Amino acid sequence: MVQPIEKFPSSLDELGRFDRVADDAAIEEELGSLLGRAPLFSDFTRDDVQHLSGFMGVYRAEANETIIHEGDGGDFMLLIVRGEVDILKRSVQREQQLMATVGAGTTIGEMSMIDGEPRFASCRTTQATTFGVLTRDNMALIILERPQLAAKILVKLITMLSARLRQTSAKLMRYMEGVLS
Amino acid sequence: MVQPIEKFPSSLDELGRFDRVADDAAIEEELGSLLGRAPLFSDFTRDDVQHLSGFMGVYRAEANETIIHEGDGGDFMLLIVRGEVDILKRSVQREQQLMATVGAGTTIGEMSMIDGEPRFASCRTTQATTFGVLTRDNMALIILERPQLAAKILVKLITMLSARLRQTSAKLMRYMEGVLS
Repeated sequence: MVQPIEKFPSSLDELGRFDRVADDAAIEEELGSLLGRAPLFSDFTRDDVQHLSGFMGVYRAEANETIIHEGDGGDFMLLIVRGEVDILKRSVQREQQLMATVGAGTTIGEMSMIDGEPRFASCRTTQATTFGVLTRDNMALIILERPQLAAKILVKLITMLSARLRQTSAKLMRYMEGVLS
Repeated sequence: MVQPIEKFPSSLDELGRFDRVADDAAIEEELGSLLGRAPLFSDFTRDDVQHLSGFMGVYRAEANETIIHEGDGGDFMLLIVRGEVDILKRSVQREQQLMATVGAGTTIGEMSMIDGEPRFASCRTTQATTFGVLTRDNMALIILERPQLAAKILVKLITMLSARLRQTSAKLMRYMEGVLS
């Protein structure tokens, strides 16, 4: 069964070195600042954010910190509240390549949060960055306790993944056709 | 608000020309045959399939029928029960390219079902094929009436999309690096 909520689980050693926003009202305020800006929250009410805040931790990292390491296990996703993050992936030659730079309102790591596969890319802050953390256990708890909220989150994750898959597939197709190289 | 269930909605003109399996017990049996075989059903119980059957229609198509047209609107997903389907996408030069061939247990069209964007590719049967249909309206109804079942479906869709996004991104990366061409 799903364990009780630990918004800042001790098992998340990789996040232990970052500053925590420990005050519940402050967490809600940080997440609430994304209403109307984060794709994840596009159908959310303030109530939804308040409920979700009860299941999410918020952390702060300095610039140039790696908050997700490619290849690691990882059972949480991040929601960037403030700041900016580079998404980096190792090439076949093992060099880190910049895939994208993302800012406030973007979610990262949702694939591993759901499917438990190793992290597909690394994420490194380019400036001081605040981010929310939702673990797989707490997602399971939201499904049990607030299923309508869970469905909103899951539908939104599917929408975002679909958009990325459409873009990536279209780009791959252009490479395969030799239009890009 | 969400409308009452219409498992074979008249709005689905594109499906109107296919044979319907109109008997509820037969629909349940068709879908139940996928237990243990369809990734979508990997955590499903027989009860789950029974409940889901109440929200899904089942159709049969002959060989060489296009059941989804690239670029069309479309608010339903398909679950192949029996048979085989080619996934085809038009290239920049407007030629149809075979992207994949998929069989029983595979879901197709889930991106448009959730996000409402046009169909990314066409799907054409290579042989007589039986498929289940889940519309966006009925998905919304499952979320309202059977939220735990809805969460199971949505989590599974995320898992499948994540796997496809990982594969597609990895392949794109190899093209971008010039390892493939």
